[in-house]
Amino acid sequence: MKLTYLVPLAAFAVTALGSRSTPPNLTFLFSANLTKGSAYIYDQSETEIKALQALTGGTIGGPNFDGTVIGGTALSTRSADGTIRADAHYLIQTTDGANILVTESAAIPYVAVLFDTSSEKYNWLNNVTAWGTPPDLNEINFLEYWQVS
Amino acid sequence: MKLTYLVPLAAFAVTALGSRSTPPNLTFLFSANLTKGSAYIYDQSETEIKALQALTGGTIGGPNFDGTVIGGTALSTRSADGTIRADAHYLIQTTDGANILVTESAAIPYVAVLFDTSSEKYNWLNNVTAWGTPPDLNEINFLEYWQVS
Amino acid sequence: MKLTYLVPLAAFAVTALGSRSTPPNLTFLFSANLTKGSAYIYDQSETEIKALQALTGGTIGGPNFDGTVIGGTALSTRSADGTIRADAHYLIQTTDGANILVTESAAIPYVAVLFDTSSEKYNWLNNVTAWGTPPDLNEINFLEYWQVS
Amino acid sequence: MKLTYLVPLAAFAVTALGSRSTPPNLTFLFSANLTKGSAYIYDQSETEIKALQALTGGTIGGPNFDGTVIGGTALSTRSADGTIRADAHYLIQTTDGANILVTESAAIPYVAVLFDTSSEKYNWLNNVTAWGTPPDLNEINFLEYWQVS
Repeated sequence: MKLTYLVPLAAFAVTALGSRSTPPNLTFLFSANLTKGSAYIYDQSETEIKALQALTGGTIGGPNFDGTVIGGTALSTRSADGTIRADAHYLIQTTDGANILVTESAAIPYVAVLFDTSSEKYNWLNNVTAWGTPPDLNEINFLEYWQVS
Repeated sequence: MKLTYLVPLAAFAVTALGSRSTPPNLTFLFSANLTKGSAYIYDQSETEIKALQALTGGTIGGPNFDGTVIGGTALSTRSADGTIRADAHYLIQTTDGANILVTESAAIPYVAVLFDTSSEKYNWLNNVTAWGTPPDLNEINFLEYWQVS
Repeated sequence: MKLTYLVPLAAFAVTALGSRSTPPNLTFLFSANLTKGSAYIYDQSETEIKALQALTGGTIGGPNFDGTVIGGTALSTRSADGTIRADAHYLIQTTDGANILVTESAAIPYVAVLFDTSSEKYNWLNNVTAWGTPPDLNEINFLEYWQVS
Repeated sequence: MKLTYLVPLAAFAVTALGSRSTPPNLTFLFSANLTKGSAYIYDQSETEIKALQALTGGTIGGPNFDGTVIGGTALSTRSADGTIRADAHYLIQTTDGANILVTESAAIPYVAVLFDTSSEKYNWLNNVTAWGTPPDLNEINFLEYWQVS
């Protein structure tokens, strides 16, 4: 076995060569109506508030899939300058029975999203980078997500 | 001290109410010309390849800042279906001396990006969710990044 | 402001100099009787199973604190060689009302643990690295945790 | 395909039933003499300092393996109360050519450690949870690591 692989990882990463669109394309992916548990603050100082909040349910709807939110957890940090960063994992179960893990990294109210599933029907989501936000900031548990590509 | 905070975290997250644009706005943020070290494969099976790769340098240029890449590390997993997921941290130092941490989560060749800095000039980046990709997949170390909002 | 800090981070990390014990000390910290929801498998192949599982409750007891588990989420990956890796976050609320975030990284049945809390009474836990495992592998939801130092 | 797996993940996690030792066993695993680059502070306030620091090299020695540190990155946060938390990834290459990823989560000067490798000789490390610390806090780049089990 050769021990030091001199080929940059990038070299085996690209299977379809070509040029990308400028600016990126945005395609509506789905909307989510999330229900959440209480936010439990475990770290609070003059300059920072950190909290854990359960994602307890919700509904998902879009052109390519519908489903429910089984559950998950969000961890959030609010800084003195008003910045709120959050990381969340939750599981979607589609109406036709696929389980999809959703991983979110957010600068609230903006959310970057990745997906993981071995469902044959939905595994195209593994290559998707999406982005979501509440269209109405008075209704922050209703978000719309867009595929960026 | 009250121990269970019943106010949803979201409630203290939103400072500027209003409705969001549909679809999101994309604003060119910067381009990066990255240099990388060798990819070291530490886990290789018939179905998966995992590697660590150093980010050793590079140049950053955009309408709002220029700088250099001080360094960082990327961890990547290539699955049998061709999906490549990567997580990276690297540090940018701007030409006027600010240090900015860049955190990337990618479904290659698409990259979701968050920033961390206490620089007064650049701390608007803490609220930015960005997205990048190589405009030319034959030149994968040159990426363009767009602010999504 | 000086922009490149040449002092290694380590240099400002050490406040109490001295030599460490060899081998490390192990001090009983607490036991946990966890309750869990169903495991939802979102990625399954011949070589790997990945699942999300809710931590829905539980009781905590030890010489220095008692409490309940409010909730959290565990993400697990089982590989073909039988290795099971897991990452979990969950929140403990002590009987005297402090909220403590528990972060676990595990090579099952062994669990490395860190804590986060701003409670004055319990913030000594922020400096603790702990390690837990089920004393009886037939009762895997009952774990004992030890402080290593 | 059955969609909701009701069997707790834990149930398929345990292959070797039995009771665990109390207290845990500690076995010397290896020592590391690390070399580090400068610490770049990207977030500094009255209450917190966050920095990125490259791990640029080093030597590893133990009863079961010897090697060198290829490189990696550490991210650290120092809080006002003196707590220092760090997360690091780095790659070890053994003298007989295996690549091993080391993942560290630390409450400095204490470090929890996990390993990833597909090397047949060293893949027993995938099931190891280790713990390390500098035996002499005046020489903080020299750490000793112990397997906990």
